Amino acid sequence: MPKVTIAQNILAANETIAQEIQRSLAARGICTINVMSSPGAGKTTLLERTIARLSGRLSIGVIEGDIETSADAERIEATGAETVQINTKGACHLEAHMIRDALEHIELNRINLLVIENIGNLVCPSAWNLGEDIRVVVMSTTDGDDKPAKYPQMFAASQVMIVNKLDLLPYVDFDLVKAKQQALAINPHLQIFEMSCRTGEGLDAWCDWLVAFARGNGLVPGEA
Amino acid sequence: MPKVTIAQNILAANETIAQEIQRSLAARGICTINVMSSPGAGKTTLLERTIARLSGRLSIGVIEGDIETSADAERIEATGAETVQINTKGACHLEAHMIRDALEHIELNRINLLVIENIGNLVCPSAWNLGEDIRVVVMSTTDGDDKPAKYPQMFAASQVMIVNKLDLLPYVDFDLVKAKQQALAINPHLQIFEMSCRTGEGLDAWCDWLVAFARGNGLVPGEA
Repeated sequence: MPKVTIAQNILAANETIAQEIQRSLAARGICTINVMSSPGAGKTTLLERTIARLSGRLSIGVIEGDIETSADAERIEATGAETVQINTKGACHLEAHMIRDALEHIELNRINLLVIENIGNLVCPSAWNLGEDIRVVVMSTTDGDDKPAKYPQMFAASQVMIVNKLDLLPYVDFDLVKAKQQALAINPHLQIFEMSCRTGEGLDAWCDWLVAFARGNGLVPGEA
Repeated sequence: MPKVTIAQNILAANETIAQEIQRSLAARGICTINVMSSPGAGKTTLLERTIARLSGRLSIGVIEGDIETSADAERIEATGAETVQINTKGACHLEAHMIRDALEHIELNRINLLVIENIGNLVCPSAWNLGEDIRVVVMSTTDGDDKPAKYPQMFAASQVMIVNKLDLLPYVDFDLVKAKQQALAINPHLQIFEMSCRTGEGLDAWCDWLVAFARGNGLVPGEA
């Protein structure tokens, strides 16, 4: 009796499209990052600040994933970056075919870094390859230091972890050492950046790393 | 040609089990709430504080949903409440069959309120009926005031919204009026409670409401 496993077929189809996207972008010299987090960890603010700081150093295109609204895409567009909005209308993650469609609306000759802001969800997006070179998970000091242990797939699937909202550390019960230890226990290769997108603390180190990443054609710089 | 829509069949099967659970719990006089939020909004701390305050007024049983770890269930068990841990091992939401299995491990004669703490995810859990009487969405002031508009299904599917972490209001850019307006535009019947589980502010109103709810056999008190 033939057995059809739907979920696996969908993921396999996604993987095929994702690999096509990655090959196509690499052939144009475009590096791609997929930025993921729980809702409200600060992805959009991170992108706003990063684009502003990298003006003149990198040309950045952004695909904004949201279930509803175009509020985030409007914020990013105000920075001058090429921006495309994807509204998933209920779906909890982006899939590669959505990226393929969105790329038709970006002038790829004008960018050398593509940033995909995924749906705010610390679970589902980690299972879907979008053709990115690296995955960046953003956690915030207000999320709690137990999140790597409780959502391990996201941290296992990422190459970079950003700990955001350092400015709120005095007001929350968040053990930064513990959060980093938990994350590194799951994924010893994680590059970790600590920052406050609100105050700007730590943003330079991240931006310098991103430039090195983009100029290195998608290789992770500084990996031991 | 017959057409099989897998997702609908799975949801229909879930609905059948959920209705069985609700009938069975109602027959025993047990009211049930399903507590949902993004990761780190404070669901577990809310339950700890609520159970402590309701000691002697309600007998509470808790089903703790987590992808991994039993850290939250251990925190709840320390309050003295009957507690069962569900680890979904990667799945992004609880389903009714998991609740049915978990209920076999709770002494139902000893409780009159069942609290289900769902997976930290502001998207997927809202689609899955677990047999609850009401759904409670917890958002925090650090999540951003745009979350109702960006994740409308969760707010449309809930009867109660808790805005937590009021103590952090002075340190974040969160417009409480805007957040409530957005939520009520999606769902005019939402009961809204504002609190800080850390300082205790606002907890009494929520606990009094919960007692009225449980004694009213699952009817939403104070609904206009």
